[in-house]
Amino acid sequence: MKARVTVMLKTGVLDPQGEAIRHALGSLGFAGVTGVRQGKVIELELAATEAATAEAEVKAMCEKLLANTVIESYRVEIL
Amino acid sequence: MKARVTVMLKTGVLDPQGEAIRHALGSLGFAGVTGVRQGKVIELELAATEAATAEAEVKAMCEKLLANTVIESYRVEIL
Repeated sequence: MKARVTVMLKTGVLDPQGEAIRHALGSLGFAGVTGVRQGKVIELELAATEAATAEAEVKAMCEKLLANTVIESYRVEIL
Repeated sequence: MKARVTVMLKTGVLDPQGEAIRHALGSLGFAGVTGVRQGKVIELELAATEAATAEAEVKAMCEKLLANTVIESYRVEIL
Protein backbone atom coordinates (compact mmCIF):
# COMPACT_ATOMS: atom_id res chain seq x y z
CA MET A 1 0.00 0.00 0.00
CA LYS A 2 1.26 3.47 -0.88
CA ALA A 3 0.86 6.66 1.14
CA ARG A 4 1.76 10.25 0.34
CA VAL A 5 2.53 12.78 3.06
CA THR A 6 2.63 16.49 2.24
CA VAL A 7 4.34 18.72 4.82
CA MET A 8 3.97 22.50 4.51
CA LEU A 9 4.96 25.36 6.77
CA LYS A 10 1.93 26.71 8.63
CA THR A 11 0.37 29.97 7.45
CA GLY A 12 2.19 32.86 9.09
CA VAL A 13 5.50 31.04 9.38
CA LEU A 14 8.13 32.78 7.28
CA ASP A 15 9.18 30.71 4.23
CA PRO A 16 12.53 32.06 2.94
CA GLN A 17 12.88 29.17 0.46
CA GLY A 18 9.52 30.07 -1.10
CA GLU A 19 10.51 33.75 -1.17
CA ALA A 20 13.76 32.86 -2.96
CA ILE A 21 11.80 30.93 -5.60
CA ARG A 22 9.37 33.83 -6.08
CA HIS A 23 12.29 36.20 -6.52
CA ALA A 24 14.03 33.88 -9.01
CA LEU A 25 10.81 33.45 -11.02
CA GLY A 26 10.48 37.24 -11.17
CA SER A 27 14.05 37.53 -12.48
CA LEU A 28 13.25 34.95 -15.17
CA GLY A 29 10.33 37.07 -16.40
CA PHE A 30 7.42 35.27 -14.71
CA ALA A 31 5.76 38.42 -13.44
CA GLY A 32 2.37 37.02 -12.44
CA VAL A 33 3.52 35.10 -9.37
CA THR A 34 2.26 36.73 -6.20
CA GLY A 35 3.18 34.10 -3.64
CA VAL A 36 5.19 30.91 -3.31
CA ARG A 37 5.33 28.37 -0.45
CA GLN A 38 7.62 25.37 -0.54
CA GLY A 39 7.07 22.12 1.30
CA LYS A 40 8.05 18.47 1.30
CA VAL A 41 6.34 15.44 -0.12
CA ILE A 42 7.20 11.98 1.17
CA GLU A 43 5.98 8.84 -0.59
CA LEU A 44 5.92 5.72 1.55
CA GLU A 45 5.60 2.09 0.49
CA LEU A 46 3.89 0.26 3.36
CA ALA A 47 3.48 -3.40 4.26
CA ALA A 48 0.04 -2.72 5.83
CA THR A 49 -2.88 -3.87 3.65
CA GLU A 50 -5.76 -2.04 5.37
CA ALA A 51 -6.22 1.64 4.55
CA ALA A 52 -7.33 2.60 8.08
CA THR A 53 -4.34 0.87 9.70
CA ALA A 54 -1.97 2.42 7.19
CA GLU A 55 -3.38 5.91 7.73
CA ALA A 56 -3.08 5.64 11.53
CA GLU A 57 0.50 4.41 11.19
CA VAL A 58 1.48 7.19 8.80
CA LYS A 59 -0.08 9.82 11.09
CA ALA A 60 2.03 8.47 13.97
CA MET A 61 5.13 8.73 11.72
CA CYS A 62 4.27 12.36 10.94
CA GLU A 63 3.88 13.25 14.62
CA LYS A 64 7.11 11.50 15.59
CA LEU A 65 9.44 12.23 12.69
CA LEU A 66 8.18 13.55 9.37
CA ALA A 67 6.74 16.91 10.44
CA ASN A 68 7.67 19.48 13.04
CA THR A 69 4.13 20.15 14.22
CA VAL A 70 5.12 23.39 15.94
CA ILE A 71 5.66 25.12 12.60
CA GLU A 72 4.49 22.59 9.99
CA SER A 73 1.17 21.04 9.05
CA TYR A 74 0.84 17.71 7.27
CA ARG A 75 -1.68 15.93 5.07
CA VAL A 76 -1.82 12.16 4.62
CA GLU A 77 -3.23 10.51 1.49
CA ILE A 78 -3.54 6.76 1.11
CA LEU A 79 -3.15 5.86 -2.59
CA MET B 1 -5.46 31.18 -9.11
CA LYS B 2 -3.47 28.57 -7.20
CA ALA B 3 -1.19 25.89 -8.60
CA ARG B 4 0.64 23.04 -6.92
CA VAL B 5 3.83 21.57 -8.40
CA THR B 6 5.15 18.23 -7.12
CA VAL B 7 8.75 17.44 -8.00
CA MET B 8 10.06 13.91 -7.40
CA LEU B 9 13.31 12.19 -8.30
CA LYS B 10 12.81 9.90 -11.30
CA THR B 11 12.57 6.15 -10.69
CA GLY B 12 16.06 4.70 -10.63
CA VAL B 13 17.71 7.86 -9.33
CA LEU B 14 19.21 7.23 -5.90
CA ASP B 15 17.36 9.07 -3.13
CA PRO B 16 19.62 9.26 -0.05
CA GLN B 17 17.19 11.55 1.78
CA GLY B 18 14.40 9.00 1.37
CA GLU B 19 16.74 6.23 2.50
CA ALA B 20 17.65 8.23 5.62
CA ILE B 21 13.95 8.64 6.45
CA ARG B 22 13.32 4.91 5.95
CA HIS B 23 16.21 4.10 8.27
CA ALA B 24 15.02 6.58 10.91
CA LEU B 25 11.46 5.19 10.75
CA GLY B 26 12.88 1.68 11.25
CA SER B 27 14.81 2.88 14.32
CA LEU B 28 11.60 4.37 15.74
CA GLY B 29 9.85 1.01 15.47
CA PHE B 30 7.90 1.50 12.24
CA ALA B 31 8.85 -1.84 10.74
CA GLY B 32 6.38 -2.03 7.86
CA VAL B 33 7.97 0.64 5.67
CA THR B 34 9.56 -0.92 2.61
CA GLY B 35 10.40 2.19 0.61
CA VAL B 36 10.54 5.97 0.97
CA ARG B 37 11.01 8.67 -1.68
CA GLN B 38 11.22 12.33 -0.81
CA GLY B 39 10.33 15.19 -3.10
CA LYS B 40 9.35 18.84 -3.10
CA VAL B 41 6.00 20.51 -3.32
CA ILE B 42 5.71 24.14 -4.42
CA GLU B 43 2.46 26.07 -4.08
CA LEU B 44 2.14 29.10 -6.34
CA GLU B 45 -0.30 31.98 -6.18
CA LEU B 46 -0.79 33.23 -9.74
CA ALA B 47 -2.27 36.37 -11.24
CA ALA B 48 -3.51 34.43 -14.30
CA THR B 49 -7.27 33.80 -14.26
CA GLU B 50 -7.55 31.11 -16.97
CA ALA B 51 -6.63 27.55 -16.00
CA ALA B 52 -5.05 26.72 -19.38
CA THR B 53 -2.85 29.85 -19.35
CA ALA B 54 -1.84 29.20 -15.75
CA GLU B 55 -0.94 25.57 -16.48
CA ALA B 56 1.22 26.49 -19.49
CA GLU B 57 2.98 29.17 -17.45
CA VAL B 58 3.65 26.83 -14.52
CA LYS B 59 5.01 24.15 -16.88
CA ALA B 60 7.43 26.72 -18.30
CA MET B 61 8.52 27.59 -14.73
CA CYS B 62 9.15 23.89 -14.03
CA GLU B 63 11.26 23.47 -17.15
CA LYS B 64 13.28 26.62 -16.44
CA LEU B 65 13.67 26.62 -12.67
CA LEU B 66 11.58 24.41 -10.42
CA ALA B 67 12.68 20.96 -11.60
CA ASN B 68 15.93 19.52 -12.86
CA THR B 69 14.40 17.47 -15.67
CA VAL B 70 17.51 15.34 -16.07
CA ILE B 71 16.85 13.59 -12.76
CA GLU B 72 13.46 14.88 -11.61
CA SER B 73 9.91 14.58 -12.87
CA TYR B 74 7.19 17.10 -12.07
CA ARG B 75 3.40 17.17 -11.89
CA VAL B 76 1.33 20.35 -12.14
CA GLU B 77 -2.13 20.69 -10.56
CA ILE B 78 -4.26 23.80 -10.96
CA LEU B 79 -6.40 24.23 -7.83
